[in-house]
Amino acid sequence: MTQETLLKNIKAKQSYLCVGLDIDLEKVPEFIRNTEDPLFTFAKAIIDKTHSYAVAYKPNLAFFESYGVDGWRAFDKIMRYLNENYPEHFTIADAKRGDIGNTAARYAKAFFENYGVDAVTVAPYMGKDAVEPFLTFKDKYAILLSLTSNPGAFDFQFTEENGKKLFEKVLQTSLKWNGAAQLMYVVGATKASALTSIRQIIPDAFLLVPGVGAQGGSLKEVSEFGMNESCGLLVNSSRGIIYASHEENFADAAASEAKKIQQEMAGYLLKKGII
Amino acid sequence: MTQETLLKNIKAKQSYLCVGLDIDLEKVPEFIRNTEDPLFTFAKAIIDKTHSYAVAYKPNLAFFESYGVDGWRAFDKIMRYLNENYPEHFTIADAKRGDIGNTAARYAKAFFENYGVDAVTVAPYMGKDAVEPFLTFKDKYAILLSLTSNPGAFDFQFTEENGKKLFEKVLQTSLKWNGAAQLMYVVGATKASALTSIRQIIPDAFLLVPGVGAQGGSLKEVSEFGMNESCGLLVNSSRGIIYASHEENFADAAASEAKKIQQEMAGYLLKKGII
Repeated sequence: MTQETLLKNIKAKQSYLCVGLDIDLEKVPEFIRNTEDPLFTFAKAIIDKTHSYAVAYKPNLAFFESYGVDGWRAFDKIMRYLNENYPEHFTIADAKRGDIGNTAARYAKAFFENYGVDAVTVAPYMGKDAVEPFLTFKDKYAILLSLTSNPGAFDFQFTEENGKKLFEKVLQTSLKWNGAAQLMYVVGATKASALTSIRQIIPDAFLLVPGVGAQGGSLKEVSEFGMNESCGLLVNSSRGIIYASHEENFADAAASEAKKIQQEMAGYLLKKGII
Repeated sequence: MTQETLLKNIKAKQSYLCVGLDIDLEKVPEFIRNTEDPLFTFAKAIIDKTHSYAVAYKPNLAFFESYGVDGWRAFDKIMRYLNENYPEHFTIADAKRGDIGNTAARYAKAFFENYGVDAVTVAPYMGKDAVEPFLTFKDKYAILLSLTSNPGAFDFQFTEENGKKLFEKVLQTSLKWNGAAQLMYVVGATKASALTSIRQIIPDAFLLVPGVGAQGGSLKEVSEFGMNESCGLLVNSSRGIIYASHEENFADAAASEAKKIQQEMAGYLLKKGII
């Protein structure tokens, strides 16, 4: 998907919501757990009810992997379902991969070609040759971890060299890589105060922002400090939406949560003059 | 596996060789490619012929993932084969995972419980809560990326704060984490000169050293600067062994390469007084 198309969809839906598919079978309603393919059944129900309010879906690979071969089969089925029925949705494999050249190329091929995702989250620690292989696929994106939303973010991401923090160095350095126009960045909502300095380094790039909702980040702050003239934001919510209810009405409850967020987002898009 | 058992195996085999299973179907002999399960068939042949010279096997997950569900099924089958037939071998899932708490816990459970590996490689960028979930499984290990063997290592790993480089900060910080005794570290053979300062920070931990052979690292230097009184080294070779020949004799050629390395290793173990 081109970034122009993504922006067009954001305008049409008046939303920059990404729904995170962190599917934990211990948390899905019991009647779903007893179906033949509970991961897919749950995801399909969530997608069918939330697609009007969201522009993106982000399956969290760890959850699928933890169910072994069945999990990977379900991930594949979910990706096919999305690409066939909702091709206007941007899809993100939240895999946080990071490995040397030939290995990175393998991961890129697997996610972009076998599963047809639009973007993969990628870890920066190993540097340029761990990321560039993801930037050679037309209209596909690597979403580079920069400043994450978890407590451990403070262990290394704020390491300071000549007045510059590591997460800022990651942003700056990455701009010189081949295919940098296909980079997006993970910036946690729990660190919204850093968004102003981040936008000085990467004014144009899309940011994937986790941590709104369950993790305590504020959608208002993220939108105020992070939005650019082309929106430039995909704000993710996982647990707050998909586990809004554990009863039979779970998909309607998810839709209602997604709609609430979408309506707040419409307000920020309007204020910025994007819609 | 306990570290005592690992050392016992190192002494018995007079080897600290880890064979990397980076299986690329384009590189395996044609008659293997045409079998029903070429990934497993190739791995089994390599394992059966090299096990006397190696103490560890390291399947590279990217290669398996790139073959989708079939790849995961083959990885599972290889792990079962290893655990049933060669339980004295230490097994490493080279997955370089790194994600927040609940997600990291998922990955740990998948690799240690579903697949029965002894260790998983883990990326440090997200900090403590991305690693600690791997350190709660008895006799299982997280192998933390510290200084990698690829060119991109220079992008961020040498970021310097108060005279300390990021890879050194990763080592030092990780020592304070819960379960730190179950940490091992990735240190690339191409940066062997750093091993002296690394050993000052982590004198006792096992190091997984990639980059010998195809990537140009020297086994002699790694052994000289990195070995401690309990060996403390697992040196990996992938392509140099498994693709030693592309003909029918590929497994014998692999054995012969592995044996060559094992014999050199025996010399270093002897010199250090370990055997």
